[in-house]
Amino acid sequence: MTRFKLVVEYDGRPFMGWQRQPHGPTVQQAIETAIGAITQEQVTLHAAGRTDAGVHAMAMTAHVDIAKVIAPLRLTDGINAKLRPLPVAILSAAIVDGDFHARFSCIGRRYLYRIVNRRAPLALDAGRAWRVTAALDAERMNEAASVLVGHHDFTTFRAAECQAQSPVKTLDRLDVSRRADEIHIEASARSFLHHQIRSFAGTLKLVGEGKWTVRDVAEALAAKDRARCGPVSPPDGLYLVRVDYS
Amino acid sequence: MTRFKLVVEYDGRPFMGWQRQPHGPTVQQAIETAIGAITQEQVTLHAAGRTDAGVHAMAMTAHVDIAKVIAPLRLTDGINAKLRPLPVAILSAAIVDGDFHARFSCIGRRYLYRIVNRRAPLALDAGRAWRVTAALDAERMNEAASVLVGHHDFTTFRAAECQAQSPVKTLDRLDVSRRADEIHIEASARSFLHHQIRSFAGTLKLVGEGKWTVRDVAEALAAKDRARCGPVSPPDGLYLVRVDYS
Repeated sequence: MTRFKLVVEYDGRPFMGWQRQPHGPTVQQAIETAIGAITQEQVTLHAAGRTDAGVHAMAMTAHVDIAKVIAPLRLTDGINAKLRPLPVAILSAAIVDGDFHARFSCIGRRYLYRIVNRRAPLALDAGRAWRVTAALDAERMNEAASVLVGHHDFTTFRAAECQAQSPVKTLDRLDVSRRADEIHIEASARSFLHHQIRSFAGTLKLVGEGKWTVRDVAEALAAKDRARCGPVSPPDGLYLVRVDYS
Repeated sequence: MTRFKLVVEYDGRPFMGWQRQPHGPTVQQAIETAIGAITQEQVTLHAAGRTDAGVHAMAMTAHVDIAKVIAPLRLTDGINAKLRPLPVAILSAAIVDGDFHARFSCIGRRYLYRIVNRRAPLALDAGRAWRVTAALDAERMNEAASVLVGHHDFTTFRAAECQAQSPVKTLDRLDVSRRADEIHIEASARSFLHHQIRSFAGTLKLVGEGKWTVRDVAEALAAKDRARCGPVSPPDGLYLVRVDYS
């Protein structure tokens, strides 16, 4: 068996998320099926994380064990050919040691959440950003974001169905910046809770439109109460940007 | 009659271009139909230019005369509501003088052509950029682009079916720059010939991969011969960025 590390880009719109499911297309299933067609093996892909339905990835990482002897470049091209016309692409494949694990060896994950702050519907960015029509103050959002950075119990910003053992995580970075009518929320951590970034985005939007103060965010965090979170933002704006390994 | 100036964003993928056609959906027809549904008038949209099938716009400009009395914001929201779920959005509407003409009053047009220079197929940018797998030297492409800037007879870079009276145009800007695996070709002029930018992009790609020299481009321009043009690049990477008025 050879272990391959795959870096994967996808547009989340047509998928019910990363993880294989009995109903509906998923990214994992699409790639496993493509590899199966090339190798005649029934393989299982292990990813750095799961993305929800509609969430995108610039560079998701996964690993897979394959018995067939095949060069990484040939595997990449073969999977990509089989994936057409789905919006999923293997950016690279590399042979890694058997102790490499896409999820457990991961030391950092980076996400981007895109807001387009305008009245008009999105034509070029439909399904690819969150349109917010109310004028947002990105500087105030950034101030509120800084309250969330650090080692905290993030119960408030965690989906009820989150399977993580502990709600305590270290958030390394949460920056909000504006360029013209686009607002970027950039988040980095070793790992995230389910819906954590979309919970942040929905809450920071309340700050941006002046409905919440920075202090409201600090109190919501301290409350460790899911009911204190702002509305979870849509998946459209969320991108897994990068996964780091030591 | 009130004349409105509309600024329009669209994703060109589902359309057979801007201009109304007997067969197949076009952006012009979609907007005219939406305005008709709001005003009960049969209107004609006049655009700054026509974009081909699959070409995108961040800010196309058009004007339209409407008899019904309606506030610009209400018109914008109304058209956008009727346009759903098509990837077309009116970014703004403004009342202008009766002598304003979206095409003839225009003093400058700016386009962007996006190349993604990598081996893997495009997942996030499918239909939205030109994927070129051969390694491209963007600096050499930029050098070749500078040869094309200025007042020239652009017969070499003009589609056979181009309807412009003269092939002589002044190209104000043609810059090529790279950022990671993305190459941008930025073009500005008062007006362009049919397929001019896609002819430039296809020719500059030959320079980027080392098949043509900068001198070859200069000679192709001087030849004033359509047969000397590189292959016209696909519409996927082309965006009308901005239209300027005095």
